[in-house]
Amino acid sequence: MHVRVGLLTGGGDVPGLNAAIRAVVKRGEGEHGHSIIGFRNGWRGLAEGDVMPLGRQQIRNVLPIGGTLLGTARYHPHSSDGGMDAVLATLEAERIEALIVVGGDGTLHAASKVAEAGIGIVAIPKTIDNDVWGTDRSIGFDTAVTIATEAVDRIHTTAESHNRVMIVEVMGRHAGWIAATSGIAGGAELVLAPEQPFDIDKIVKFLRHRHRAHASFSIIVVAEGAVPAEGTAMQYETQLGRFGEIIAGSISERLKVEIAERTGFDTRVTVLGHIQRGGTPTPTDRILGSRFGVAAIDAITRGETGVMTALRGDDIVLVPLAEIAGKVKQVPTELLDVAQALA
Amino acid sequence: MHVRVGLLTGGGDVPGLNAAIRAVVKRGEGEHGHSIIGFRNGWRGLAEGDVMPLGRQQIRNVLPIGGTLLGTARYHPHSSDGGMDAVLATLEAERIEALIVVGGDGTLHAASKVAEAGIGIVAIPKTIDNDVWGTDRSIGFDTAVTIATEAVDRIHTTAESHNRVMIVEVMGRHAGWIAATSGIAGGAELVLAPEQPFDIDKIVKFLRHRHRAHASFSIIVVAEGAVPAEGTAMQYETQLGRFGEIIAGSISERLKVEIAERTGFDTRVTVLGHIQRGGTPTPTDRILGSRFGVAAIDAITRGETGVMTALRGDDIVLVPLAEIAGKVKQVPTELLDVAQALA
Amino acid sequence: MHVRVGLLTGGGDVPGLNAAIRAVVKRGEGEHGHSIIGFRNGWRGLAEGDVMPLGRQQIRNVLPIGGTLLGTARYHPHSSDGGMDAVLATLEAERIEALIVVGGDGTLHAASKVAEAGIGIVAIPKTIDNDVWGTDRSIGFDTAVTIATEAVDRIHTTAESHNRVMIVEVMGRHAGWIAATSGIAGGAELVLAPEQPFDIDKIVKFLRHRHRAHASFSIIVVAEGAVPAEGTAMQYETQLGRFGEIIAGSISERLKVEIAERTGFDTRVTVLGHIQRGGTPTPTDRILGSRFGVAAIDAITRGETGVMTALRGDDIVLVPLAEIAGKVKQVPTELLDVAQALA
Amino acid sequence: MHVRVGLLTGGGDVPGLNAAIRAVVKRGEGEHGHSIIGFRNGWRGLAEGDVMPLGRQQIRNVLPIGGTLLGTARYHPHSSDGGMDAVLATLEAERIEALIVVGGDGTLHAASKVAEAGIGIVAIPKTIDNDVWGTDRSIGFDTAVTIATEAVDRIHTTAESHNRVMIVEVMGRHAGWIAATSGIAGGAELVLAPEQPFDIDKIVKFLRHRHRAHASFSIIVVAEGAVPAEGTAMQYETQLGRFGEIIAGSISERLKVEIAERTGFDTRVTVLGHIQRGGTPTPTDRILGSRFGVAAIDAITRGETGVMTALRGDDIVLVPLAEIAGKVKQVPTELLDVAQALA
Repeated sequence: MHVRVGLLTGGGDVPGLNAAIRAVVKRGEGEHGHSIIGFRNGWRGLAEGDVMPLGRQQIRNVLPIGGTLLGTARYHPHSSDGGMDAVLATLEAERIEALIVVGGDGTLHAASKVAEAGIGIVAIPKTIDNDVWGTDRSIGFDTAVTIATEAVDRIHTTAESHNRVMIVEVMGRHAGWIAATSGIAGGAELVLAPEQPFDIDKIVKFLRHRHRAHASFSIIVVAEGAVPAEGTAMQYETQLGRFGEIIAGSISERLKVEIAERTGFDTRVTVLGHIQRGGTPTPTDRILGSRFGVAAIDAITRGETGVMTALRGDDIVLVPLAEIAGKVKQVPTELLDVAQALA
Repeated sequence: MHVRVGLLTGGGDVPGLNAAIRAVVKRGEGEHGHSIIGFRNGWRGLAEGDVMPLGRQQIRNVLPIGGTLLGTARYHPHSSDGGMDAVLATLEAERIEALIVVGGDGTLHAASKVAEAGIGIVAIPKTIDNDVWGTDRSIGFDTAVTIATEAVDRIHTTAESHNRVMIVEVMGRHAGWIAATSGIAGGAELVLAPEQPFDIDKIVKFLRHRHRAHASFSIIVVAEGAVPAEGTAMQYETQLGRFGEIIAGSISERLKVEIAERTGFDTRVTVLGHIQRGGTPTPTDRILGSRFGVAAIDAITRGETGVMTALRGDDIVLVPLAEIAGKVKQVPTELLDVAQALA
Repeated sequence: MHVRVGLLTGGGDVPGLNAAIRAVVKRGEGEHGHSIIGFRNGWRGLAEGDVMPLGRQQIRNVLPIGGTLLGTARYHPHSSDGGMDAVLATLEAERIEALIVVGGDGTLHAASKVAEAGIGIVAIPKTIDNDVWGTDRSIGFDTAVTIATEAVDRIHTTAESHNRVMIVEVMGRHAGWIAATSGIAGGAELVLAPEQPFDIDKIVKFLRHRHRAHASFSIIVVAEGAVPAEGTAMQYETQLGRFGEIIAGSISERLKVEIAERTGFDTRVTVLGHIQRGGTPTPTDRILGSRFGVAAIDAITRGETGVMTALRGDDIVLVPLAEIAGKVKQVPTELLDVAQALA
Repeated sequence: MHVRVGLLTGGGDVPGLNAAIRAVVKRGEGEHGHSIIGFRNGWRGLAEGDVMPLGRQQIRNVLPIGGTLLGTARYHPHSSDGGMDAVLATLEAERIEALIVVGGDGTLHAASKVAEAGIGIVAIPKTIDNDVWGTDRSIGFDTAVTIATEAVDRIHTTAESHNRVMIVEVMGRHAGWIAATSGIAGGAELVLAPEQPFDIDKIVKFLRHRHRAHASFSIIVVAEGAVPAEGTAMQYETQLGRFGEIIAGSISERLKVEIAERTGFDTRVTVLGHIQRGGTPTPTDRILGSRFGVAAIDAITRGETGVMTALRGDDIVLVPLAEIAGKVKQVPTELLDVAQALA
């Protein structure tokens, strides 16, 4: 049975999206004979009817290319005036019978809203933060960890001077997946994640002890969402400049000031920022994107919607969208414990 | 309680072993206060009493280094004259109370034999083939897939000439994990794995059709253990030279002859060989090694032995050694199906 | 003055060609206002009039992509029946006023033939062998060295077993540039290059001595064009199989047999082959391609033809095509000496 | 003739230093029979008599490792109280007959001071800035360019959103080598280098025009030492916070504010910082280090001192230290021109 399937990628760029798009097109058009109608720039393109027909030609040689050939945007129909109506209008105008959306929290939330309006949706999870509930891995995470680890490796070779502390800030607003994994892989002395609010007094004490005992340097990997524990006080505050968004009282800058002032160690910050989202996807992200893409189009072919593709161990499964909403997958204690144990 | 823990790495080299060694030493000595006694060159070193004491100094900066600082060897005590006795003698002489062995099929088999002799053993699975039963991943696999995918990527850019067929032979004697994953990630047209014996007639037909229709090249990723299906005949045989081990009637060379003779296409073989086992471990392999190392020493600290550390989804678990013996973890059909679907 | 400029890439693929194409188009069309007319598949496309117009759209995002967007072929007009006439006919039909050809020995030779027929030509040197006379570097070499070194690095970590000899065969038919540089960079024990025919007796003696003294392994990097010195005999010959082209009595296989038989060491061969030509170009190759492309179109704009762009130290210069013909740039003795000195 | 040779690495870490150390030891001790006496932490170790004897064991497996096994420090004897006396005292106490120093501007300056005191010195240039006069390349530059280009590549895939400007700040205080080369290799729209002071009005105009015309994003690579041209005014100033060193009115932050305020485009900064100094050295840096190391020890063996090893085209030459002092090697206009031409 031939189906007209819509496809969009929402939220921030991550490597591996093109693998998912390619898989949907190859399996959907090539094997099942469906029509795959892409929408440019995520939900915005769907709202605006910005169509990009997808066929063999569009997906040529895209596997090793980061980003998304469909473009993306941080736009959510349910929180934009007339957004939902516009989306439904486009779906009707284009006679879309089922919709595949690739995205993170925001996109998945939008997906459940659109699903409630009666549209058959299959979601594919992507986020370098890896905090989508219900799946072991989301597209983009493995590449981000690889980039972050490479950075920690590089800083390792340059940090080995006298009494230097290097702080590496990685992404992770609600969960410390990148921090914990790149911290373990790169051999960081400390990993600070949102899951375990930190006590700055203990950190300063640890660093003083370590540097007195034997070490000449320490590397701290900190997730952007790391926070001080309640009842523990940072003694120094970063004064915001006029263009406060620049330093934003970011956790890494605050830590830097605190550590530098209290230990006297040469303390430096590297914020990885956007480079974590870019570059050639790792094999793991390409495979995950490919498997998710095939699973999504196969689900639609079977008439199964309202679900998200997910990795569980070695298997690809489908999880009801309703189960995912509002949950954050945090780093298991065992993994955080390994990060601390190997300091 | 202080324990004298022996540690060895057996079988072929893989990246990520040093992460495991480091984790055992850091957690074992640094936190639990155990003594970690390494043995050089796998079981052979244990049989010969070749001891390498392990402490903070030995594991410095080893995380990004491939291979194993302990050395390894393909020696199995139970299949060597006097091997078991020598092993038991060393264990007694060194007053080893528990033994951690990192290895693949052969090492795990040896481990179960030594465990039967009353020695408390915890095994850590490593093999680039990823075919150890009971764990989602073994140390070394992710790095091997990364290297193989990189090779397929590179061949992609050079294969785009007229009517060329490139055969890439990867490791995988009993299971096609590397072939399936690097085939998907690299966008190969065909993946041949031991799990699904192939029909050369269909392959030739597929290639002829593909090249007539639109394509100018094809890439075939073949596991070294791939075999023709029963009842399907290869028409051409590779004549063995005097130094037959060179071409060894390897499956890739046989395929090359068959395809070249029957299609007339320029057909070439690249055998990745040893480079799949080398180089800097990926973050995934370093993290896996670190988690397995911590889990192994923690198990010993709790007095739990006769088990293998294993990854299941996001979790590290322990699997009884007895359950693993003689089983091969093959590639799930879904994954092989994705490989074929995206051709 | 507006010029209609033809552009083709001939010979084997190398990474960095797209940078040169992009530079010709950006500088030529964007700044000088010329028309850039590409020909597909090298000289063959020029002979057959296979035109690919080049503008901003065609060169988007091609910098990090290996291969050539124009395609290539190993076809030379002067050695093909009617080839020269066909080339001249196309040039006239397309009103090409000047021609930029990117290629190695064969293409440069063809270029001088076409130039003799009165066509204004600027050549850009590319070859992973780096043996084009008159320029410090040719496009593709740096990427090939990077890939070869990475392979030697990887083999290093796996070679450290007892009495193993690993032979890595790299490209270089007439000059040992890749062998010498990847041998130095990878820390190989021996480098065999065409420039210095080897004495197998000395090699065997060196290996025996080295392994007796202290080492457990040795890595030999051999250029495909390496040869035994006159008067020195290989004792063992590789028997050719029916499909002799497979093993082809390749120098690495012959070495393997000789070393294995005479030393008893476990000796293995890895032939890097096509992967040396593929993948993302290094920055050096992208910059070289970009500078050469700009220099070529600038020369044409100034009316200067019959030349090849060349790198000399930090500078880009133009060398008369006539000076290059028939010469091979060999590896300087100092570089080969460094390779041997650091064994 | 046996010589006692001192060896130190000064200034900031760069990848490739270990290759130079290894070459000095292998060639010096292994072939010439000299004694190589290392000093830890650069000039400081020489002043303090912090000796590290160097032999086969110390240089094992160091080729692919970044940093320097000797350690380094930013200490200069001639500008420290009693520094010169302490250095001369150590040289006498250790009976050092000749000294090899690996370093950048500061170290080379110190070297000429120590040479004036009658010590036979051979210098080896290293600096990721590549601004040492007299040599085409310094150790560390190629790796830094590779890392910077990789970052620009990654940002490329994430920058392709609506009206975004990405500023990437790279090292280069007095010369824009990294900026120019990574800008060309990564396809940046603008490259700002110290050699050509910029006019912010023109930049804003260029960006406005570009984004109106067709583009949705722009990448600017800026050297840390880039400055506005005289007579051109930045309209907005970055207010310094209490911890002014954090934002330091860095050129990239100032540009960000200026561009964001005047164009309204979403403008973001990535400061690569220390990661440019780290990681595995590229083959080019390993080869350069190896050749320089061999050339330095060979010069000493011949009794030639007061010189610096240098790369000129394909050749290694020696340049008198006196010729280098106080000069900065800037980026040639042609290279900067290519960077702008390909925007």
